[in-house]
Amino acid sequence: MTPHTMEHTPIDDISMASFDHIIINANIATFSAQYGFDIYASDRTDSSPYGQLENAALGIKNGKIAWIGAHEQITPHLSQYQDQQITDGNGKWLTPGLIDCHTHIVYGGNRSNEFEARLQGVSYQDIAAQGGGIVATVSATREASIETLFAQSEKRLLALIQEGVTSIEVKSGYGLDLDTERKMLTVARKLGDKHGIHVSTTYLAAHALPPEYQSHMQDRADEYIEQVCAWLPILHSEGLVDAVDGFCENIAFNTAQIKRVFEVARSLDLPVKLHSEQLSDIGGSALVAEYQGLSSDHLEHLSEADIKKMAASNTVAVLLPGAFYTLRDTKLPPIDALRKYQVPMAISTDCNPGTSPLTSLLLAMNMGCTLFYLTPEEVLAGTTLHAAQALGLSNKGKIEVGCDADLALWDITRPADLAYQIGLNPIQGIMSQGRWRKAV
Amino acid sequence: MTPHTMEHTPIDDISMASFDHIIINANIATFSAQYGFDIYASDRTDSSPYGQLENAALGIKNGKIAWIGAHEQITPHLSQYQDQQITDGNGKWLTPGLIDCHTHIVYGGNRSNEFEARLQGVSYQDIAAQGGGIVATVSATREASIETLFAQSEKRLLALIQEGVTSIEVKSGYGLDLDTERKMLTVARKLGDKHGIHVSTTYLAAHALPPEYQSHMQDRADEYIEQVCAWLPILHSEGLVDAVDGFCENIAFNTAQIKRVFEVARSLDLPVKLHSEQLSDIGGSALVAEYQGLSSDHLEHLSEADIKKMAASNTVAVLLPGAFYTLRDTKLPPIDALRKYQVPMAISTDCNPGTSPLTSLLLAMNMGCTLFYLTPEEVLAGTTLHAAQALGLSNKGKIEVGCDADLALWDITRPADLAYQIGLNPIQGIMSQGRWRKAV
Ligand SMILES: [Zn+2]
Ligand SMILES: [Zn+2]
Repeated sequence: MTPHTMEHTPIDDISMASFDHIIINANIATFSAQYGFDIYASDRTDSSPYGQLENAALGIKNGKIAWIGAHEQITPHLSQYQDQQITDGNGKWLTPGLIDCHTHIVYGGNRSNEFEARLQGVSYQDIAAQGGGIVATVSATREASIETLFAQSEKRLLALIQEGVTSIEVKSGYGLDLDTERKMLTVARKLGDKHGIHVSTTYLAAHALPPEYQSHMQDRADEYIEQVCAWLPILHSEGLVDAVDGFCENIAFNTAQIKRVFEVARSLDLPVKLHSEQLSDIGGSALVAEYQGLSSDHLEHLSEADIKKMAASNTVAVLLPGAFYTLRDTKLPPIDALRKYQVPMAISTDCNPGTSPLTSLLLAMNMGCTLFYLTPEEVLAGTTLHAAQALGLSNKGKIEVGCDADLALWDITRPADLAYQIGLNPIQGIMSQGRWRKAV
Repeated sequence: MTPHTMEHTPIDDISMASFDHIIINANIATFSAQYGFDIYASDRTDSSPYGQLENAALGIKNGKIAWIGAHEQITPHLSQYQDQQITDGNGKWLTPGLIDCHTHIVYGGNRSNEFEARLQGVSYQDIAAQGGGIVATVSATREASIETLFAQSEKRLLALIQEGVTSIEVKSGYGLDLDTERKMLTVARKLGDKHGIHVSTTYLAAHALPPEYQSHMQDRADEYIEQVCAWLPILHSEGLVDAVDGFCENIAFNTAQIKRVFEVARSLDLPVKLHSEQLSDIGGSALVAEYQGLSSDHLEHLSEADIKKMAASNTVAVLLPGAFYTLRDTKLPPIDALRKYQVPMAISTDCNPGTSPLTSLLLAMNMGCTLFYLTPEEVLAGTTLHAAQALGLSNKGKIEVGCDADLALWDITRPADLAYQIGLNPIQGIMSQGRWRKAV
């Protein structure tokens, strides 16, 4: 594991530079091709695992990474900086701020009562008959005031932030009516504003058929999709939508219905993504590829033919081991085939009240290794570089000059520690857009 | 779920009482039979889930629980107390401080390099040939200074404490020589002293055959056991041993060897416990029952016949889902049979660098539900009342007058939330022996 040779900025530049902040004496997992990161290199000895730089330093200016070099290059210039402008990494590891690229953290209530009832032997059917399941969350989300919804969701966001998450995707989809979808997306935006992290919002009204449309399932699903298509331009015009998603399964919406929603997204120039092949293969990922979608998510039942299509459209495979774990699934996503066709793989919490009440991205990484046999490098790339790609964020998820200074500093001896340790949070500092959130 | 009727202390007593601290306006999961907790009641309508008391209050004196009653009983007397003596539970939930009854948190180094190598396709054999596996931890633990060992282990302890753990068992077993076993147990004691929590120490020199005895496996195992037996009275005389444990498997020590160690324990009046039936059934739990052991731990391969013996000797079944998860085990422990014979079940992290690098007892509880199909009530009893029993601590693990005031206050709406949420730590306050560790 020879670290890649650093491209040294001429020393004159550094002496002239006046960075807002410098981080010295750190090992950096850059996930940048410039530093040799190439997870699909045919010969791994040509690549640098994690794109790692040892004994490195980093200069930050205007919220961006302005310079990366060797620790020794910056030491002659330390006197130019005040103490509070210098962070000594003490030989610890710096990574890009983590990115949770698939979450449903904004919702009302919780479903621990159902969790308990099921373990006491109550059937899914009986729980559903008593208004449980997603319907319970839809009701609680509709009923919650915007303040209550914000407060409940904020706890989940803070748990993620405390583990180094600086960007998060948040989906709507528990409103299933215009006002509540708007309320969810508004809460998502407000959460990002308050906590100074990046929030990508995703419109997921095509998540489930709302209870009021459930009298005659088949016909009324098309009717509901018509509404979904009608609401999208409205919410987009309000600045609430960054991407469009749907739930494409036999128990949810078919590809024809999702296609209608995607057509509206295309007309608005909005990128698409999809919940696909979690329970069955009805062609979701192929549809995403057709629309050059950002990502296709879950994918346990994905076929090799559709993997090729995802590779061709450069669509990220977002893997969600928290749902796999909670549902006690046994059908693994086709990891080896995804590797074979060099599809970028991301890892996310899928935080939601039913199938993945998970607010630890570090644990999702461990589950990616333990349950899906991914390597630590794959799961870390999956919560940085590839998660950024799944959100269309080209300036995040890697440590490279010009990228956003979203960083996490960790008290670990090697990057694999982040995937190996379970329940230990070794975070030392979190920087978002050049500003430390937590004293180092 | 009707809460059990509280046995009201006469109001005169409370007006006269001068508690050191009172907690008002809380819901309490007592896990006390006095309040109707009876997880094996033939008719659950006769029992109170979690032994719960709603709208309750609690008085603490000299580090003990001195009074439990209704919130309304204490409100007339609030003026007797200063603000800092009163904790308002705000309708949140109070549980006994959690107890992690099976851990190996004291060790040197970590094994993330092996974790990574295995996922990259390196075989166990090759890792072992390169000095990996338990041998790597033994080497690192032997080499570590007592200060280094303390510092490394303290991070793991703090992660557990932050989740409401107020008592923890810590095993030796990575020294496998007298000095290092002593060093580990000394660190365990010092950790408890520094952080003001209860530490039960367990002598586990019969954990593995040390490398220096491995030239002729069979013969030298007996030789090593002779040493294990010789060291025990020495370390016990130094006040370092609360219980005695061993690893009884085909790949470790047989029952005849463990019996020799148990005989020494009996002569010293020390309780025993055992790593049993994790990989095979060679009679470990039957041996534990013969010695009226506190607990038998792991138990995936436990037979019904031996469950009966455990029930007769009142031995706790300690279940370790973190190891099951990490090893991708598929053989479930015999939960239904343990229920049938009313064996108390505990849940623990088994925190160790190889098979369960887990420092979250809340996550162990979730895994108990998700992987072992235990109920939230069972896993919470398994980290309170039954975990206390597994350590022989009769004054801990329940909320009852006379018990130690080891408590955890949680920002949750119902006890099941603690098992349902994954990666969210809803702790609000931790009291150890009557002293809050964290401001509420
Ligand atoms: Zn989802
Ligand atoms: Zn163990």
